[in-house]
Amino acid sequence: MPKVGIVMGSDSDMKVMSKAADMLEKLGIEYEMTIISAHREPDVFFEYAKSAEEKDFKVIIAGAGMAAHLPGMCAAIFPMPVIGVPMSGKNLAGEDALFSIVQMPPGIPVATVAIDGGMNAAVLAAKILATSDAALLDRLKAYTQEMKETVQAKAAKLDELGYKEYLKQM
Amino acid sequence: MPKVGIVMGSDSDMKVMSKAADMLEKLGIEYEMTIISAHREPDVFFEYAKSAEEKDFKVIIAGAGMAAHLPGMCAAIFPMPVIGVPMSGKNLAGEDALFSIVQMPPGIPVATVAIDGGMNAAVLAAKILATSDAALLDRLKAYTQEMKETVQAKAAKLDELGYKEYLKQM
Amino acid sequence: MPKVGIVMGSDSDMKVMSKAADMLEKLGIEYEMTIISAHREPDVFFEYAKSAEEKDFKVIIAGAGMAAHLPGMCAAIFPMPVIGVPMSGKNLAGEDALFSIVQMPPGIPVATVAIDGGMNAAVLAAKILATSDAALLDRLKAYTQEMKETVQAKAAKLDELGYKEYLKQM
Amino acid sequence: MPKVGIVMGSDSDMKVMSKAADMLEKLGIEYEMTIISAHREPDVFFEYAKSAEEKDFKVIIAGAGMAAHLPGMCAAIFPMPVIGVPMSGKNLAGEDALFSIVQMPPGIPVATVAIDGGMNAAVLAAKILATSDAALLDRLKAYTQEMKETVQAKAAKLDELGYKEYLKQM
Amino acid sequence: MPKVGIVMGSDSDMKVMSKAADMLEKLGIEYEMTIISAHREPDVFFEYAKSAEEKDFKVIIAGAGMAAHLPGMCAAIFPMPVIGVPMSGKNLAGEDALFSIVQMPPGIPVATVAIDGGMNAAVLAAKILATSDAALLDRLKAYTQEMKETVQAKAAKLDELGYKEYLKQM
Amino acid sequence: MPKVGIVMGSDSDMKVMSKAADMLEKLGIEYEMTIISAHREPDVFFEYAKSAEEKDFKVIIAGAGMAAHLPGMCAAIFPMPVIGVPMSGKNLAGEDALFSIVQMPPGIPVATVAIDGGMNAAVLAAKILATSDAALLDRLKAYTQEMKETVQAKAAKLDELGYKEYLKQM
Amino acid sequence: MPKVGIVMGSDSDMKVMSKAADMLEKLGIEYEMTIISAHREPDVFFEYAKSAEEKDFKVIIAGAGMAAHLPGMCAAIFPMPVIGVPMSGKNLAGEDALFSIVQMPPGIPVATVAIDGGMNAAVLAAKILATSDAALLDRLKAYTQEMKETVQAKAAKLDELGYKEYLKQM
Amino acid sequence: MPKVGIVMGSDSDMKVMSKAADMLEKLGIEYEMTIISAHREPDVFFEYAKSAEEKDFKVIIAGAGMAAHLPGMCAAIFPMPVIGVPMSGKNLAGEDALFSIVQMPPGIPVATVAIDGGMNAAVLAAKILATSDAALLDRLKAYTQEMKETVQAKAAKLDELGYKEYLKQM
Repeated sequence: MPKVGIVMGSDSDMKVMSKAADMLEKLGIEYEMTIISAHREPDVFFEYAKSAEEKDFKVIIAGAGMAAHLPGMCAAIFPMPVIGVPMSGKNLAGEDALFSIVQMPPGIPVATVAIDGGMNAAVLAAKILATSDAALLDRLKAYTQEMKETVQAKAAKLDELGYKEYLKQM
Repeated sequence: MPKVGIVMGSDSDMKVMSKAADMLEKLGIEYEMTIISAHREPDVFFEYAKSAEEKDFKVIIAGAGMAAHLPGMCAAIFPMPVIGVPMSGKNLAGEDALFSIVQMPPGIPVATVAIDGGMNAAVLAAKILATSDAALLDRLKAYTQEMKETVQAKAAKLDELGYKEYLKQM
Repeated sequence: MPKVGIVMGSDSDMKVMSKAADMLEKLGIEYEMTIISAHREPDVFFEYAKSAEEKDFKVIIAGAGMAAHLPGMCAAIFPMPVIGVPMSGKNLAGEDALFSIVQMPPGIPVATVAIDGGMNAAVLAAKILATSDAALLDRLKAYTQEMKETVQAKAAKLDELGYKEYLKQM
Repeated sequence: MPKVGIVMGSDSDMKVMSKAADMLEKLGIEYEMTIISAHREPDVFFEYAKSAEEKDFKVIIAGAGMAAHLPGMCAAIFPMPVIGVPMSGKNLAGEDALFSIVQMPPGIPVATVAIDGGMNAAVLAAKILATSDAALLDRLKAYTQEMKETVQAKAAKLDELGYKEYLKQM
Repeated sequence: MPKVGIVMGSDSDMKVMSKAADMLEKLGIEYEMTIISAHREPDVFFEYAKSAEEKDFKVIIAGAGMAAHLPGMCAAIFPMPVIGVPMSGKNLAGEDALFSIVQMPPGIPVATVAIDGGMNAAVLAAKILATSDAALLDRLKAYTQEMKETVQAKAAKLDELGYKEYLKQM
Repeated sequence: MPKVGIVMGSDSDMKVMSKAADMLEKLGIEYEMTIISAHREPDVFFEYAKSAEEKDFKVIIAGAGMAAHLPGMCAAIFPMPVIGVPMSGKNLAGEDALFSIVQMPPGIPVATVAIDGGMNAAVLAAKILATSDAALLDRLKAYTQEMKETVQAKAAKLDELGYKEYLKQM
Repeated sequence: MPKVGIVMGSDSDMKVMSKAADMLEKLGIEYEMTIISAHREPDVFFEYAKSAEEKDFKVIIAGAGMAAHLPGMCAAIFPMPVIGVPMSGKNLAGEDALFSIVQMPPGIPVATVAIDGGMNAAVLAAKILATSDAALLDRLKAYTQEMKETVQAKAAKLDELGYKEYLKQM
Repeated sequence: MPKVGIVMGSDSDMKVMSKAADMLEKLGIEYEMTIISAHREPDVFFEYAKSAEEKDFKVIIAGAGMAAHLPGMCAAIFPMPVIGVPMSGKNLAGEDALFSIVQMPPGIPVATVAIDGGMNAAVLAAKILATSDAALLDRLKAYTQEMKETVQAKAAKLDELGYKEYLKQM
């Protein structure tokens, strides 16, 4: 039974949102992914947001660009956490989606992550679920350890090769 | 029978939105004004937006600040023009509401006016209604003439007084 | 008899403005498209703006970039709605044209759409004309339904293929 | 036993962060509030972040302004969710703290809320805890209902008084 | 016979534009100051811009705020230099007027000075006229010397008093 | 004898500054172009700025990027007009050079043109020189006429071909 | 013999720059403070920057606002570190001075601190001098310890009073 | 014995940071370069920052992008100068890293250089070390002379070839 709903406003967001799915899979979290436009099919959207609790979702990850309303509208209806992923676009350097998602009014927060931060949305969802799931918390700690080792391996490689050679191999 | 719906997300927007109402009254256009939060009462909002056509609204003027979703969500449901008024707030110099309102995705435009531009929203609504109302078009032209004369009177006063005296009288 | 005038300041805007024309054609709205620079030929521009009402235009769609004065100057002369399309440029991430178009002073609004939002300008023009044209309103509703179905088809495809396969086919 | 840690980098943040405490109290959630500067006492900070899990914290709410490192450094150490509250300052319109908190690199998300959004941080913490606490979820739903009724009361008052009188009473 | 035309879009710009007049007087340059709105009275504006050369203006100083079109439209018509003064407003930190004035397209430059830089507009006008007026050039050099002496007097005072006492006397 | 000095801080600015030279040549104005870095050779720079008047320069066009000090430092020394051309760079969307050039303090204006506006700098220089050169003023008017005809030819072509064909030929 | 030169472009910067002086005094570092405008008295400025090494200055702290050229021009001449303090102004939220100071071209760095960060400029100067002054390094460490204790005292007070009482006493 | 530590948060920063190393080598300054993520391995980071003084580092150059905490956290622990290099990223035009690094709170400065300014970080480190190293100061002066000659050679080449030929050879 999926615990996380991933929803995006357009399939142009899929490259970023697929990183959320990849990370949820890596951390062993079931999810359901779909495309719903709050603007182009508001009734479908409302139905989705209203039924999310029944479907036993604990977290929704919503990605959107430009005047990104999808995460905020999910947060207006779904009573548990909504994570917003601002998509960068051609103009305004990503500020439009970021401001549209993060600047929610009092009472209806969206947990906003970095612009194009699909992967981080999944890690945040995992951290949320880990507040009541000790096994998942352990997997998260293992992932943290893995990140640490990856950086350490790079440092060791730099130490060994020197930066000139390191750069050539990049 | 009101032709224009004025809606705002919070009564903190009323000072700006009252200027829309003032101008509609001046131009002889009936309107209905209310407060509805797309975030705090999404079902009330949906009902409002869906019934707007039945109530014979031709234009909706929607004002909102921060992650201003109200105008865009109206535009997703109401089939005729939605005019968005971005409200300035304490932070981000008004860019949050402006970007959240103007950067709508293809197919669902919001006719955006200046930040805190309540009065201009009403003028735009009047211009829209004037596309099929010759009498209103005449009233708009009279208003345009009035604006012209106001500026000309100021120029004449400056000419007469000189800028030093003019400044003292401001 | 054309109801919509499409005007742009330079032929470098034509790629964006052609989307306005495409959409007007799709919605069965007659239009006339031209290139006029308010800066390079102010007298030609003035003549255009002044004669627009006589030519029975109900809406003008004006696109411009950088210090985009064309939409605002149209709005100063033409008594019915002017829709402004800010063009993105090489610098300032599109903010220059957006601010130059949307921040009009009290009394002379420009109905501003998203940066490079040529298509949305046409949809907004159609929504304006639909306030007095029931057949057009029906065509707009059909278009809305079409947008909805397009998103639903994508959601169904995602459901069927899974995101990994979906991404490959993009 | 407190479930939420509230931490701020300076007591100048307390006006905003007190709203987080107020809301947690309203929702019946135990918390512990303190002042710790990641910059002025990094060892105290490290000890705090490392011991947070032992103290049975499930969520940390961290507020900071300017080059706001406190939330991100908490997220680097604490394995469960960290909610970041960007504080506005005298310059840069709040963008400095917002960007410093939200733009976290892959793997270490901070759940960012609006600038000066202390209250929303508490609501988000509650939504997170509600993923495994049905009674809290019910209290959240009651709070949502309360927000709805507050807006409806305002709409009714506006309907009764008219906007001119409403404005006078503000 | 005035050589400089000072024009502003609204009398709310007069506090800034009066500094231009003050400086022109100090430098012994005749000018004519008026209020003309390119948006509210486009025909008056056109007449003004077209007749400026006949009136023997050599430079126009134009101040405007928000979507500041006045300087650019002057530059489209008047064949000699137009100096633009962006006015700060309530929102967007002055960027709207600055971008609207400085980002002119190829062929129609506006000589833009700092936001609210009325005084500098006059100095620039004087520098322009001084390219063919040796006496004025001398007056400008005297003014430059005066500025230098003012700063040196402040430095001497700081040296004498120390900064603590200096601050008290400010 | 050259009347205009063109100076740039780095040869990476030459692509933009060459457009200034092209336009001065077109308008029959003698100029001298060089590369001087106010930062890398301040004494060479000072000598240049101090001797500019003796060399009979009437206008200096200075281009610079990033923390663009060259135009402002020229304006501090040269008593006649300095035109500043902000160069766009890799970061900050061109705002760094624009703000560094336009925001000069009272008394030392730089006549700022659009970002990367090399051509406009030359037109502005010509307009300045035309305040005392009737033949140049005539050449400027001819150039204005030429711009007008270019746009009209494009409009005629669009009228003839239609936008679909026009776009194909671009 | 002073080791640090403090220089500001205008006495309007003195409130911020006095904090630099206060902190240098606290840390036992001799300094010399003056007012020099690179724009209004370039020759005085050049003389100052050129003679700074002879006067045995090791660091220059330069504060400036708007198109803040003073720090960068010092860095072009003085061979040891120049610390730049961007001053906030009325417009552009402090971005103009920040970008003008920090975005120096390759080879001529300015060590930039926060907007209005006069105190931090002094701490940075002390850190620089401490690279070869063990006694000063000890004083800096004592200052660091003092900062730590100040925060800890606030945390203890909050613990004792609770946030409601703490807020009242602020 | 290395005097400068170069540290970056990710090997994606190496292209920029390698320019720091190149310049330190050119100026004959020993350094040690490594990769450490304050976010992904906070304990490794703490150990690094704490042991830097023992290793006899006099300066740390820290590069980071997005919510760039590495330089500021180094400055919180290391008692001598930390130079911060903001890395540009895909979004926000480089403002996120710049603001995260430069806007440090009172008492903990980071000497910030331009976005992607790796080379300048090394020059600044050299200037810092030169406050107590006369031989290095001489090498810095020689480098300054070299920069000057490079620009002069370009100016001579431009003078010889003319800009049209110069551009072709670029």
